[in-house]
Amino acid sequence: MLGNFTYCNPTKLYFGQNALDGLNEELPKYGKNVLLVYGGGSIKKNGIYDKVIDILKANKKEIYEDAGVMPNPTVDKLNEGIERAKAAKADLILAVGGGSVCDYAKAVSVSVNCNDDAWDKYFIRFEDVTCDIIPVGCVLTMVGTGSEMNGGSVITNHEQKLKIGHVFGEKVFPKFSVLNPEFTYTLPKYQMVSGIYDIMSHILEQYFSGTDDNTSDYIMEGLLRSLIHSANIAVEKPTDYEARSNIMWIATWALNTLVAKGKTTDWMVHMLGQAVAAYTDATHGMTLAAVSMPYYRYILSYGTAKFARYAVNVWNVNPEGKTEIQIANEGLDIMEAWMKKIGLIMNITELGATKAILDGMVKSTLIMDGGYKVMDADDIRAVLQASF
Amino acid sequence: MLGNFTYCNPTKLYFGQNALDGLNEELPKYGKNVLLVYGGGSIKKNGIYDKVIDILKANKKEIYEDAGVMPNPTVDKLNEGIERAKAAKADLILAVGGGSVCDYAKAVSVSVNCNDDAWDKYFIRFEDVTCDIIPVGCVLTMVGTGSEMNGGSVITNHEQKLKIGHVFGEKVFPKFSVLNPEFTYTLPKYQMVSGIYDIMSHILEQYFSGTDDNTSDYIMEGLLRSLIHSANIAVEKPTDYEARSNIMWIATWALNTLVAKGKTTDWMVHMLGQAVAAYTDATHGMTLAAVSMPYYRYILSYGTAKFARYAVNVWNVNPEGKTEIQIANEGLDIMEAWMKKIGLIMNITELGATKAILDGMVKSTLIMDGGYKVMDADDIRAVLQASF
Repeated sequence: MLGNFTYCNPTKLYFGQNALDGLNEELPKYGKNVLLVYGGGSIKKNGIYDKVIDILKANKKEIYEDAGVMPNPTVDKLNEGIERAKAAKADLILAVGGGSVCDYAKAVSVSVNCNDDAWDKYFIRFEDVTCDIIPVGCVLTMVGTGSEMNGGSVITNHEQKLKIGHVFGEKVFPKFSVLNPEFTYTLPKYQMVSGIYDIMSHILEQYFSGTDDNTSDYIMEGLLRSLIHSANIAVEKPTDYEARSNIMWIATWALNTLVAKGKTTDWMVHMLGQAVAAYTDATHGMTLAAVSMPYYRYILSYGTAKFARYAVNVWNVNPEGKTEIQIANEGLDIMEAWMKKIGLIMNITELGATKAILDGMVKSTLIMDGGYKVMDADDIRAVLQASF
Repeated sequence: MLGNFTYCNPTKLYFGQNALDGLNEELPKYGKNVLLVYGGGSIKKNGIYDKVIDILKANKKEIYEDAGVMPNPTVDKLNEGIERAKAAKADLILAVGGGSVCDYAKAVSVSVNCNDDAWDKYFIRFEDVTCDIIPVGCVLTMVGTGSEMNGGSVITNHEQKLKIGHVFGEKVFPKFSVLNPEFTYTLPKYQMVSGIYDIMSHILEQYFSGTDDNTSDYIMEGLLRSLIHSANIAVEKPTDYEARSNIMWIATWALNTLVAKGKTTDWMVHMLGQAVAAYTDATHGMTLAAVSMPYYRYILSYGTAKFARYAVNVWNVNPEGKTEIQIANEGLDIMEAWMKKIGLIMNITELGATKAILDGMVKSTLIMDGGYKVMDADDIRAVLQASF
């Protein structure tokens, strides 16, 4: 655990089949105007909407709605949400949905009381929040982003072909989150495995960074082993409660700042995936899956020891009689086969990318410098080229 | 992750070589009267006392002192501390020391404004806190108990021959803790390895419980592997910063409620060790080490599969061609050899226990029911008998 850091995560989690009862603990802490934020309406089909409305009414809340949050929330929608929250004089924003809905709720929460343009301030200039923040609570219905217990918020600007995330500080974290694994049962398998790979990528992008050997790496190996174990069960039987509950818990702990402690963190798979999504609007986890193997094989020689450790400690590769590079490659081979087996999309062509947008995607890829090899535009191009 | 649970841990951690600077962030949040709580005065020899006093003065605090907190804080000392905190009209209790000092500070914090007898209310009747709590901050100088990020508080009553812990809720958690691994360098090796085993026991007593296969188990395997790795380095070179920093971080996460989620938790090793300590006043971690092997061998047949998993995933036992029970026993054999190697005391005789106090220790052992085998008095006697 090298370096100086702070850790503080004040989000209160309610977990389990009765988790929604937690709303009765939390709602009395806030004023009467609640802005209910959700997506395309699947919560109306599976009954979660009605349950939430009943609890809001029982707690005598004035309910204002902001529906239609899309999988990659746009800056136009954000500006609409700001107006809705203002009109509602919202005391609490309650996000009911997946990471996109929760990300969006946070973006609205930090923008309502600011006079500045939200996109420019937070997603182009990466400025700190300087105005009052509306508290956010979250009822999670899709697993993957970790947004339920962190300050992250990703917004897409189609006009500028940019999908950018801002990691806000602990004041922007949801005050509470409701995590009922059963709420994720009705999600289509495509979305479920996409979420599973989003979780895995969060862990790997923190794991494959830095030169130190710290406790965070060991925790991440545990999370990865548990994730693989439970994913194998969930893919066969999506209503296996224990598997889905483990996956939900891992998602939260993969990206709530804990496992980043003592690490530099990489995040280039996310930067590449987000560039692909800015052009294709493809599902987040699938964009990560499609660029991961080309990226890891590209940087493997810059961090071979860690890739070999990963092969042994996560994928049970037997290292006997093999060179470090052989062990490392064998680990990636096993990982690639597993990704295909659970149904991930392994190339960006299937996600709608064409050679015509290659230049654009290269330009849209933000370069971050915490990984084993700092990329330049040629490196980005090579990885994306290999991802078709 | 079976069952319903909540998770909330609001303690802010400042970690690293500059961690003490965190006091300058935190002190302005509280009133001017600070009760400085510490132990036998080692912080005056190693300079930490002077550093803390300088920061308190720079923040214009009125400093009141409560020194002499002993390794197993007594009910008499607790009653003295309550009077000192009252006299100081303390706005903040700042604990500078190890787990005992932090435990003691929390016990004072929940007792000052209560009219009831603190020992009876919290440690005999296990009642909730019903009065105002004085906020506690912690500057950690010894690693092991996890008290810096939880609500635990263990107090000893020599007259009643009882050493009992109360696990308070999140309102009693320290508001902030300062974790500088260098502050632990001057600790004698005996204390260091005692702390290391305290950490290991915290993890194992949560790991060896329940029948479910959940993410907490995988996280604990990671923590255990990291702990063994770093302990081996620290025992050879106590000033290895990275090893000491990992151990400090693991200690915090071993007992801040995270890895208990989804588990029943056992805690019989602590109950046995605390009974030994009530009679011998021996160092906490050593009492745990001395009873662990007899206890684990006693319950092994009730949880063989988990002990076998532990052998393979934590101690790298090769399972090929062996029965489950052979694998499980091999794991404990390797663990026992490792415990001896790092310098732990492996029997209670060396800690001052005699057959004359056996009956008393059996009576003083609280029985908890979360482990693989619920003990009765005969079981307790058998384990203690085997610990001489």
